[in-house]
Amino acid sequence: MAVYTHVSAEMMARFLRDYDTGELISFKGIAEGVENSNFLVETRGGKDGHRFILTLYEKRVDPGDLPFFMALLDHLAERGCRVPRAIADRNGVQIRELAGRPACLIEFLEGISLTSPSPAQARAAGEALARMHHAVADFDGARPNSMGLASWHELAGRCDGQWQQIDPALEALVEGELAFLAEHWPQNLPQSVIHADLFPDNVLMLGDSVSGLIDFYFSCRDARAYDLAVTHSAWCFSPDGRQFDSAVSDALLQGYHANLKLTPQEIAALPILARGSALRFTLSRAYDWINTPPDALVTRKDPMAFARRLIFYADPAKAGLFG
Amino acid sequence: MAVYTHVSAEMMARFLRDYDTGELISFKGIAEGVENSNFLVETRGGKDGHRFILTLYEKRVDPGDLPFFMALLDHLAERGCRVPRAIADRNGVQIRELAGRPACLIEFLEGISLTSPSPAQARAAGEALARMHHAVADFDGARPNSMGLASWHELAGRCDGQWQQIDPALEALVEGELAFLAEHWPQNLPQSVIHADLFPDNVLMLGDSVSGLIDFYFSCRDARAYDLAVTHSAWCFSPDGRQFDSAVSDALLQGYHANLKLTPQEIAALPILARGSALRFTLSRAYDWINTPPDALVTRKDPMAFARRLIFYADPAKAGLFG
Repeated sequence: MAVYTHVSAEMMARFLRDYDTGELISFKGIAEGVENSNFLVETRGGKDGHRFILTLYEKRVDPGDLPFFMALLDHLAERGCRVPRAIADRNGVQIRELAGRPACLIEFLEGISLTSPSPAQARAAGEALARMHHAVADFDGARPNSMGLASWHELAGRCDGQWQQIDPALEALVEGELAFLAEHWPQNLPQSVIHADLFPDNVLMLGDSVSGLIDFYFSCRDARAYDLAVTHSAWCFSPDGRQFDSAVSDALLQGYHANLKLTPQEIAALPILARGSALRFTLSRAYDWINTPPDALVTRKDPMAFARRLIFYADPAKAGLFG
Repeated sequence: MAVYTHVSAEMMARFLRDYDTGELISFKGIAEGVENSNFLVETRGGKDGHRFILTLYEKRVDPGDLPFFMALLDHLAERGCRVPRAIADRNGVQIRELAGRPACLIEFLEGISLTSPSPAQARAAGEALARMHHAVADFDGARPNSMGLASWHELAGRCDGQWQQIDPALEALVEGELAFLAEHWPQNLPQSVIHADLFPDNVLMLGDSVSGLIDFYFSCRDARAYDLAVTHSAWCFSPDGRQFDSAVSDALLQGYHANLKLTPQEIAALPILARGSALRFTLSRAYDWINTPPDALVTRKDPMAFARRLIFYADPAKAGLFG
């Protein structure tokens, strides 16, 4: 939660002169996302809206992926999905540069990100995810999953010798799971562009309705059912992973299935896909944990919160969870 | 620039139930101010406005001073000064608690904070400062200047032995100036409640008009002309203090004088008050510099930027600057 790059109001006002967004009247750095610098921008007198998020892409986002992300937002918005539109300048350009970084101006959406969603809210998130999967059926953009199965071995390797500083049981858990998933990871499931990171953070809600899906910077082409598994692992547990909420889980799955029927093969694969999701976030958090000084102002996210989910999903007694 | 305390949207929604501000529809941590956690809050359907800044007071603000600050904002707003009103809950309480911190909900004002103000904008700031000084004539709140003359010796003492890590010439400059000001600091000037920190950061502007004065957390009772001297030292130089902008200086002083006539004693005192202001920010920045690890995510502000202003103001050739 930080703004990494300073942008003055004067720089911002100059930047906006190339857009049909009117005159700058407010400009605040916001503590949103972990990897980019984000600013809330307000204008008046323009044709192309008056409230925006300006994002400067700092580190983890590959600038070469931005055309894919922007095309995806355009595609989803055109099909009625509630996602922020990317705003083009008068020359039709969506991806610009500001302060030496790739910069995109994106529609601001109302809504709040929940920490403890209710079943009704989880149902709405499941519905929105299914609608997104319908909407991308005719989207032909492609981006491989940089955080998919193949990456997990590499990520684990970069944590080698340092697992102990997190938890004494973690190394064995990760190694066992890597071996298991390498052997059992489902192949030939229906592919689709997926969000791949649909945490409650990335779903804006007004009451029990979804007002926006945001932060598509992990979106990629992968198994469609894996997206539901990621969302399940992100929504259905207490943040520390100690408590599973079956009412939230049932509602999320019902919301999804009511709008999109998965194949029997996909449903059968969900328990393993959920293990994969839990391992993916265990590993990315472990890597960040090891590489973030304890006194940094950035809050480190506990890898064990997802290791606990992994143990939960791997428990044979939970096999019936996904129906 | 950081959010120090995590507040969930659910906590915020609960907090707002005691206000007539309607339903929460957006909530973002903002990178505003250095010492407090600030959030931009948006609601709908309420009677008491729909956009607010929520501030959680973290460190430097003494909770005992909050009633003074809130009474000052109320007083100024009632007299037509553009300052953010403090919002009271249904019981009339402005100073509440959230996440274990004192918390105030304050009106959101449009406007942007400039980095390089033009003469026209400096004139508007001078006018707004003079109007504020008029408006506090009948405000009887009292708060001593915790960053006034008496504090500078103590602050310098806490930097003892560590000046070298900033600049080899700084210690002698500070010691000489402390001795000079102790002997020559003007007494018996007209007192008033002053802002005491009116940097361009703390003036919201729309075009060449002031839309808000903000961040009154150093406001106190002190020499009225000292406020103009602080504003002068904050507005009339390049950020690094190397370049004085005489057009901005002239405009700022004209804007002030056109709205409030200082006494001859006050005008004569301005050069020394400006030295005091430059020393005050040199010292507070030096203290922060010494006590902030170089690798902290907080940007350290260069004390030399104000040491250079100090040298400028102390130059006898600049004696005519203030008329």
